[in-house]
Amino acid sequence: MAPHPINAMIAAADDAINREDFDALMSFYTDDATLVVVPGRAANGKEEIRKAFVAIAAHYEHTLYLTQGDMIVIEAGDTALVIAQTNVRANMKSATPTLETRNANYVFRRESDGEWRCMIDNSYGAALLNHVGD
Amino acid sequence: MAPHPINAMIAAADDAINREDFDALMSFYTDDATLVVVPGRAANGKEEIRKAFVAIAAHYEHTLYLTQGDMIVIEAGDTALVIAQTNVRANMKSATPTLETRNANYVFRRESDGEWRCMIDNSYGAALLNHVGD
Repeated sequence: MAPHPINAMIAAADDAINREDFDALMSFYTDDATLVVVPGRAANGKEEIRKAFVAIAAHYEHTLYLTQGDMIVIEAGDTALVIAQTNVRANMKSATPTLETRNANYVFRRESDGEWRCMIDNSYGAALLNHVGD
Repeated sequence: MAPHPINAMIAAADDAINREDFDALMSFYTDDATLVVVPGRAANGKEEIRKAFVAIAAHYEHTLYLTQGDMIVIEAGDTALVIAQTNVRANMKSATPTLETRNANYVFRRESDGEWRCMIDNSYGAALLNHVGD
């Protein structure tokens, strides 16, 4: 089966995050997108999302490096739910990097120019349920 | 925090499944909805979704009983990603029921009449990743 075009979009967005090219990164989001920054806190719209990524880069001391593992895309009309393994590598204050694999959820929309863009970005997946009532 | 209106929709949809009232159940889906029937197989549109639920009810020998646990709703414009604990109870060929809790993903859209309807129904959540390449 040919890879879904969203696969390449997510790889390019990861590359933009890894290079800290936040202008390029914003082109992957819809204007009304929502990013789950940490469990219980979301950024809405490109301005807030850009600020969140600047803060995330600083939090990881500019060592954050994302790659994707397996990915499933479920389409309905111009909307797609993506379930993806996201590998989060960072190398803060230690000689060896920490590595975490998350099951992320993304919702993409195919906009009027035919491009898929991310509308909801939840890199925590169902792990958010562990924080209900925090 | 007040419960999101989608909570009540999902409770009512579960009730329709439990009563096997598939006409009522279809009112909770958009016309172009996609249901993940089993990992790797999806039903598209109300006609296929209705047939899938009839087959699911027969598969569980009419003992399927769904309830929801914790639920998180992440909105972006007229779209919402729902992450929910779904409790699946069934009582086939045994005196005691089997009980399974799944982390489901749903994508809802607020349509022009103001009602939220389910566009993507994936009761398997990230467990689908265990079946990549099956």
